[in-house]
Amino acid sequence: MTAIAAINRNEDGIKTACGVLAQRFGDRLVTGRSVREQHGHTTTWIANQPPDAVISPRGTEEVAMIVSICAEHATPVIPFGTGTSLEGQVNAPGGGVCIDFSEMNRVLEINEDDLDCIVEPGVTRKALNAELRDTGLFFPIDPGADASLGGMASTRASGTNAVRYGTMKDNVLALEAVMPDGQVASTGKRARKSSAGYDLTRLLIGAEGTLGVITKLTLKLQGIPESIASASCCFPSVKDACGAVISTAQYGLPVARIELLDQLTVRAVNAFSKLDLPETPLLLLEFHGSEDSVAEQSREFGGIAESYGGERFIWTANSEERNRLWQARHDAYWATRQLRPGASIFVTDICVPISRLAECVRVAQERASRDELLAPIVGHAGDGNFHMSLLVDENDVRELGRAKEFVGWLNELAISMDGTCTGEHGVGQGKMAYLERELGAATRYMASIKSAIDPLNIMNPGKILPA
Amino acid sequence: MTAIAAINRNEDGIKTACGVLAQRFGDRLVTGRSVREQHGHTTTWIANQPPDAVISPRGTEEVAMIVSICAEHATPVIPFGTGTSLEGQVNAPGGGVCIDFSEMNRVLEINEDDLDCIVEPGVTRKALNAELRDTGLFFPIDPGADASLGGMASTRASGTNAVRYGTMKDNVLALEAVMPDGQVASTGKRARKSSAGYDLTRLLIGAEGTLGVITKLTLKLQGIPESIASASCCFPSVKDACGAVISTAQYGLPVARIELLDQLTVRAVNAFSKLDLPETPLLLLEFHGSEDSVAEQSREFGGIAESYGGERFIWTANSEERNRLWQARHDAYWATRQLRPGASIFVTDICVPISRLAECVRVAQERASRDELLAPIVGHAGDGNFHMSLLVDENDVRELGRAKEFVGWLNELAISMDGTCTGEHGVGQGKMAYLERELGAATRYMASIKSAIDPLNIMNPGKILPA
Repeated sequence: MTAIAAINRNEDGIKTACGVLAQRFGDRLVTGRSVREQHGHTTTWIANQPPDAVISPRGTEEVAMIVSICAEHATPVIPFGTGTSLEGQVNAPGGGVCIDFSEMNRVLEINEDDLDCIVEPGVTRKALNAELRDTGLFFPIDPGADASLGGMASTRASGTNAVRYGTMKDNVLALEAVMPDGQVASTGKRARKSSAGYDLTRLLIGAEGTLGVITKLTLKLQGIPESIASASCCFPSVKDACGAVISTAQYGLPVARIELLDQLTVRAVNAFSKLDLPETPLLLLEFHGSEDSVAEQSREFGGIAESYGGERFIWTANSEERNRLWQARHDAYWATRQLRPGASIFVTDICVPISRLAECVRVAQERASRDELLAPIVGHAGDGNFHMSLLVDENDVRELGRAKEFVGWLNELAISMDGTCTGEHGVGQGKMAYLERELGAATRYMASIKSAIDPLNIMNPGKILPA
Repeated sequence: MTAIAAINRNEDGIKTACGVLAQRFGDRLVTGRSVREQHGHTTTWIANQPPDAVISPRGTEEVAMIVSICAEHATPVIPFGTGTSLEGQVNAPGGGVCIDFSEMNRVLEINEDDLDCIVEPGVTRKALNAELRDTGLFFPIDPGADASLGGMASTRASGTNAVRYGTMKDNVLALEAVMPDGQVASTGKRARKSSAGYDLTRLLIGAEGTLGVITKLTLKLQGIPESIASASCCFPSVKDACGAVISTAQYGLPVARIELLDQLTVRAVNAFSKLDLPETPLLLLEFHGSEDSVAEQSREFGGIAESYGGERFIWTANSEERNRLWQARHDAYWATRQLRPGASIFVTDICVPISRLAECVRVAQERASRDELLAPIVGHAGDGNFHMSLLVDENDVRELGRAKEFVGWLNELAISMDGTCTGEHGVGQGKMAYLERELGAATRYMASIKSAIDPLNIMNPGKILPA
């Protein structure tokens, strides 16, 4: 655990706000230590900074009441979905009140004819897809974790099928949010497109709760494809695998997922899952469409792969065989952990133009090897986004130092390659130091917007921008 | 021509700013009346409000210099692309300096491997596609007019193929802009996705130049499809045509365009283009993909159309025949003008959830008929967006009154159906009165952002939000 600097606590304000909230909500305002710690950051190397109290509202009006009380007493408000964010987004560095959305988990409307739905922010993506099952529709964004949709919007999440369906910014039609002054604002209607004024929907997506608290989401839905095919192919090098990815994009194949596993991850998966994949870079793909079209796409990809030295190309539309084919990807997280049991994981999240992906991976692998860091890679190759996970013994001070330096260097590398230090995890506390390096003067206008919308800096302070 | 209220002129500031600009730019600062009038609004019923001077910078540095000088003297800055906006976006209600981007029209980079390019804002979409021709790539957004890409981003434009490729908000990776303080900001890198802070890219898209002047755009490109097929089908009613559109969407057919022409438009096109289409609602479609896939998509749509009483279904992948099939759409603008030569056109732009489209069109047609207004319809049916064009004799005061009332009523109708008064034309001056009706409290936060970023209100004042 590495401490992140705390920010100034408004001790009196927090005490008063918690007192007023306790009067209004009784024992629904929870202040027990273990609950508070569960609502701080728990997923990565960033130290846990618990809030002063946790409350689970049951509707927009209660959220508005909580925010109004906190605003009156200049008390921080930290929204919480499932706590699966990776950059400290749910930490409370200046204390304050955590709004836990687990009781705002209703699907409010499903509009089958319009391929949209309206949900409360605590609905998780799996819960939504379970509820949609009978409609023939689904919500495509899949960040891995069964995250809440409010949290996914707040971090501008994406994941394995962003290459086809886009990220949260592309799949939210409109939001309702409680703003820092306690007022409720709706950013749009259910029309598929609109040119009506500033795009507050997109401004709140990725704002990590620093501009307002999302209380409803209107989401685009997709028809469940008639057929799904999966494919896998081994490549002599990361460069060859990336070449195949670029050709696939240029050819216009509407691939739904295209994931890269490096040699080290394949080795880990072989050991963990008793597979016998050749220990070379591996691409895993998924195609969505009609039966004919997924067969055609699979074969076309096979042809592309062959021209890049791809071997052991397999594809199937059978669902059991598909699961077997993707097992390496599903097991990757636990398999790589087993490479060094007990080690801490430093997850990185850089994203570069795909023309730079092969070079970026190669340079990163070379330095990791030189620095004696164990760092397997899984990547959303179609977007140029990859996660290098450093397995670090935090008790080894020198190794810890090398790991931290490596992460900083990798972020800078991505920026120098016209990329970003965060493809999908957000800034939170962990990436705050890199935002200005990446976007320069633009961060000043972000700060102006933050001050204008949240002049008291009560909304999730200490995230994205320096307090 | 209908006057829009002027806003206060800063007479001294404008005079001083123009004096300083004349010293720096010599006769490149143009103040002749006809040039100024060409740079005011010229396309619809909104009266022309020319700027005090027009200048055509040759790069970002010159734009920054112009904005800095205007900022110093609190002088309005109005960006101008090709002048094809429809809601008065280029008017200068408080006077000021028009920045004409016709000399910033270079394609700066084409990155074939990454399917992106970087362009100056004065590049038009046709010029870009001409330059891309040899690469096998294209930029998909097609608003009809050969608009500049800076202008298209500023109004969040879309058009006929948004149903497949999205709008400008989905096809811009990053922007460079000169901000109201004269500083240059870059909103992002070339990575395909990013979670790095507030989405300033999307904030500037659709801001109509009120938050900053776009000086560069990084655009996503698409592979030119191997094959394109077009189809047309006549329907007994708008309701049946919309039913077919909804089923097409639910079925997940990746249609590239799906346009609705109402009976009146079909009648106009028959007369204008010597066609003999049945005078019933018509859907025109386009499919992009491999040869097999466009054939499959066409046949699948044919099956859907049949179940909604569709007749005279035709499809073809032959390019000459495709053009003939779409002739009705290409000629629609001039054909409908010929329904009443000399009349003024009031263009509307509402967008509703597609489940409401048939009802919305029916109610609108019924009222137009009751009000004795000639009002043909062309619609981007796949998005629920349609343009009803009122052909009005502005000399007939009573008809003019009915037309204005109708437009207001139609905007309210869309809002009451969970839709928007502007699907793709923007707010400008023409829709300003409806923005708050549509988005309520959210407009207050738009105003906060505007004040924070542009405290002097020099960037295209009198647009989107009240001055």
